[in-house]
Amino acid sequence: MQMTGTLYGIGVGPGDPDLLTLKAVTRLRECAIVAYPEADGRPSLALSIAAPHLSNEIIRYPYTLPIAHALAPGQAAYDLLADKLAEDLDQGHNVAVLCEGDPLFYGSFAEVMTRLSPRYPVEVVPGITSSHAAAAVVCQPIVQRNASWSVLPATLPNEELACKLAQTDAAALLKVGRHLGRVRRLLYQLDLLDRAIYAERVSQPDARMMPLAKMLDETAPYFSLIFIGMKPE
Amino acid sequence: MQMTGTLYGIGVGPGDPDLLTLKAVTRLRECAIVAYPEADGRPSLALSIAAPHLSNEIIRYPYTLPIAHALAPGQAAYDLLADKLAEDLDQGHNVAVLCEGDPLFYGSFAEVMTRLSPRYPVEVVPGITSSHAAAAVVCQPIVQRNASWSVLPATLPNEELACKLAQTDAAALLKVGRHLGRVRRLLYQLDLLDRAIYAERVSQPDARMMPLAKMLDETAPYFSLIFIGMKPE
Repeated sequence: MQMTGTLYGIGVGPGDPDLLTLKAVTRLRECAIVAYPEADGRPSLALSIAAPHLSNEIIRYPYTLPIAHALAPGQAAYDLLADKLAEDLDQGHNVAVLCEGDPLFYGSFAEVMTRLSPRYPVEVVPGITSSHAAAAVVCQPIVQRNASWSVLPATLPNEELACKLAQTDAAALLKVGRHLGRVRRLLYQLDLLDRAIYAERVSQPDARMMPLAKMLDETAPYFSLIFIGMKPE
Repeated sequence: MQMTGTLYGIGVGPGDPDLLTLKAVTRLRECAIVAYPEADGRPSLALSIAAPHLSNEIIRYPYTLPIAHALAPGQAAYDLLADKLAEDLDQGHNVAVLCEGDPLFYGSFAEVMTRLSPRYPVEVVPGITSSHAAAAVVCQPIVQRNASWSVLPATLPNEELACKLAQTDAAALLKVGRHLGRVRRLLYQLDLLDRAIYAERVSQPDARMMPLAKMLDETAPYFSLIFIGMKPE
């Protein structure tokens, strides 16, 4: 009886290749196949981060997923991806799925894992998230002492965002994209604009960070977030 | 005029030495002095993680801080630590402060940074937090799609915890310690006990993880957390 391969979800961090963990590098070297998301012809960030650690022989498998607007997008696409990876796992090959940030923190790996973990061994290598990287760049504490921290999708409606922000001391808003203008006005109304930092492509070569009050666009790139620091004492 | 050294806040992750980032390893090699917290005679976890990457010549500076119960503990101890590190920075030496998890996510580095950043260059290397490591061990998604995520100190009173938990889809409760029994009963009342996982010394050799419903102690070690996964669909 042939042993199956292991499915690895590898967190590659937010962009800076040096924010890979030692474990991610080791696991990448143990895999015969590497799968990574590609969006509409853009080069894959995840692949560019991991590339220096991939052997020449590794089989590269880019996959395309629609960017999520609906609650449960692309289920058929995930089925297809899982089936494809299962073929390789059945042949005893280890498969790495590259994940920007952390594999279990938003993103598509959880969808793949849910489908394959009943049949194959799975190992997840956690990664640095963009919120932690953003705080590091501006050298600003995220939370201290008894403060609480929340990560919220900017896609949520204003009323829901306001309730959640009222219950936290510091926060990051992800998936800002086309919600930038609306969220900036909301944070102004909530008296949070002064504490908000806009961050784009954190830790990547073309990163931009500025006070949100100075970022007047209505929309932002997909890889952008708003960091809201603790209230000054 | 002599150049001052740089203060590095190095996130060393939750315990597994392989969860160090490549950047942390590089920076540790560039430092002449390494400072790390030591609690009441226990060997330093942060030092044991970083030790394989420290040169024999590096000067080791363990420091002791009281474990925080008050809102602003040990301010005098932080002043003393900052003064001590400033001496080395003034002499042009780079100083690494080792931080379990992420340097800006709870913990003492923010206190040191606030005191020294007006006078010295600071660089923060983000680290993997225990919550992300815990989710990786149990292969459970933290958040997906439009879900929200919160990290809360278990030290907060019941009413406050209940309000915050009502506004989030998934959460981690940190600093569980002597609050374990109270928080377990609260989560039972809030109908969250079934989704709660108790995790102790995540990713360390003596790690323990189990459903919180099976962890009947009243108190837990300092390095413990409760992970509350998303509601099953």
